[in-house]
This record gives sequence, C-alpha cells and structure tokens, in this order.
Amino acid sequence: MRCNEIKIRSATTKDHDAIWKIFHEIISAGDTYSLDPRMSREEALAYWFRADTQTYVAELHRQSVGEAVGFPGTARPSPTIGTKDWVIAGTYILRPNQSGPGSHIANAAFMVASNAQGSGVGRAMAEHCLSEARRMGFRAMQFNFVVSTNTPAIYLWKQLGFEIIGTLPGAFRHPEKGYVDVYIMFHSLLS
Amino acid sequence: MRCNEIKIRSATTKDHDAIWKIFHEIISAGDTYSLDPRMSREEALAYWFRADTQTYVAELHRQSVGEAVGFPGTARPSPTIGTKDWVIAGTYILRPNQSGPGSHIANAAFMVASNAQGSGVGRAMAEHCLSEARRMGFRAMQFNFVVSTNTPAIYLWKQLGFEIIGTLPGAFRHPEKGYVDVYIMFHSLLS
Repeated sequence: MRCNEIKIRSATTKDHDAIWKIFHEIISAGDTYSLDPRMSREEALAYWFRADTQTYVAELHRQSVGEAVGFPGTARPSPTIGTKDWVIAGTYILRPNQSGPGSHIANAAFMVASNAQGSGVGRAMAEHCLSEARRMGFRAMQFNFVVSTNTPAIYLWKQLGFEIIGTLPGAFRHPEKGYVDVYIMFHSLLS
Repeated sequence: MRCNEIKIRSATTKDHDAIWKIFHEIISAGDTYSLDPRMSREEALAYWFRADTQTYVAELHRQSVGEAVGFPGTARPSPTIGTKDWVIAGTYILRPNQSGPGSHIANAAFMVASNAQGSGVGRAMAEHCLSEARRMGFRAMQFNFVVSTNTPAIYLWKQLGFEIIGTLPGAFRHPEKGYVDVYIMFHSLLS
C-alpha cells in the first residue's frame, strides 16, 4: 500500500469553491447523505460552516491524486482547485451532536471527492477527527445516519472502533436500491 | 380514570406566550431535553416553529386542569394564559427527521406544562401526532433522544408502539444523576 501525502487543516472561506464542488458531487449522487440533492451552494455552505461546527479540508498531493485515480487514457486528472501541488480532496465537519446537556457527544460528517476515493483521505480525516474530538474534550462520537449500503464507510468506522448501536429500518431511500436500513454508530472516547 | 376535555390544534403566533412559558419551564429543569437551559425566547420559538415543522398546542378545559393538579389548599390553579375556559397545557412539533432521501421518517417532540402532568395531555398529543404523521404519509416515527430517566415518557411511547432500537451510553448529563443513557425509539407507521 502506497502512502499518499495528505495535509489536513481548518477550512477558510477560500476553500468554499472546493468544498462546494465535493459537496455537490456527493449530494447529487444521493446514495449516502440524507440531504436534499437540490440544495443550493449557499445552503450547503451554511450547513457545513454552521456556528457550532468546526470545518476541515484534506489536501492531497497532486501526484498522489493522479496515482490514486488512474483514469484510463489520462496520465492524471486535472483538478482545477487548489494550489499548484496540493488539491483539496476531502472535507469534514465536527460538532456537538446535541446542545445543552447532550453537548459532550460529538458528531461528524465526511466527504471525499470521487477522484480521490481509495487515496486514504477518508481514513486520514477520520483519524484526525477522532483526535480533534478528544482534544476538545468530547466523551464520545456518534454518527446518526450511516446508510447500510455505504460499505466502505462502515468498514472504516468499524476499523476505527465504532460500533453499530442501532438500526433504523428502511430509513434511507436509495436511488437504485429503494428503502434501505440506516445504522447509528457510536465510539466512546473515554480512555 | 376521568377523561379530561382536551382540544388539539395547529399553533399560531398568538400561542407564542403560552408555548414559551411551557418550553422555558421544561428546558430550565434540564432533565429531559438536550437543549441549552439558557435558550432565549426568540431561539426557542425559532426552533419550535422551524420552516419544516408543524407545531401544535393542546388545550385543556380549565376545570380539568384544576382537577388534574389538585394543589393542596387551592381549589384549582390559576393559569394566566388561554381563553376563559381553555388553557394551553401542552405543545408538540412534527417534522421530517432528516431531509432529502431520509425525509419519509418523522420526528416529534412533546412538552407538557408541569401543572398538567397526569392530565392525559401527553398521551392525547402523542396519539394526535401519530395520526397526523400517518396522514402526511410518513413511513415511521423516530425519537432521537429519549433520556432513560424519563420513565413516564418511555412508558407512554412503549404503550403506543415505539421500540427502543438503540442505547447511547451516558449521552445525557442529568442535573442530579450525572451521565445517564439515552434511547433511540422507533415506530413503523406502515400498516
């Protein structure tokens, strides 16, 4: 397994274009997030940069993107956003899952650009996120809505210590598979 | 068991005072909702009347309120809000639990004034809510955050057909009991 070069940092307004590009790609596919596929750029950025939310981006070295993707017939893709050598390949958010007396449990959401699937960006963001959540003093992390057909994500969450603590029958309307189950996943951060 | 007279209807802006009174009483107690006890009236009403939300109030006949409460030494309490004969004793909201491909599952939240506990208002609102959710075409109803120490609510939800489908360990910081578990409850509405 090759280790791609990945940098993770807090997002700024300069990252809006790159984030919206990834966000729009993922909600348009409509197979992993319970978000309206017709959500506007403005609504999406308001959601991703909510006042109680920490927003991060993952940058992948351009050469790594090319190698990870390997489009047939092209030496590498041509990402149009990012610096010369680094391209934003993923983004994630971290926030309290509830407010008030429930605010000690974190929630997070992750998005990886389709041309960076398999590059390790998802795993790197998840590990970064758990570390950030611990640093901020959260006692656990909860995912409220993991679509059961999203097997790569579930595999990763389990590897990182998440457990399925509940199943919501038919809670997601998959564009091809119809109503499918949704998992609630939980990971204690207490050592 | 005496049947109190209860009327349930859609809330209007004229109900804001009565709703805020109940809302504030409940979040100040801080033992059932994961909402900031210091939430302002404005924030509370924005949350309770969100654009995707249906808001209802339950009115209890004044004589029924008096009988249900039975304050020692008083013939009946003196509710200051409501019409001459009917007083708003509870409020609930109904909305999609998720947006987009998760919007076919409903979510709801209920609040009963402390001086109307035991009057049947909670049960009447819950039954009304399930009926409304069916009418609107929701396929199920999900409660995301039922505090495990809230035994009267859990008893009622189970009687109405809800099941605990997951337990969140220590997800609620109870003002007296410390970290207590939280249940996720689910009720299919498919006949």
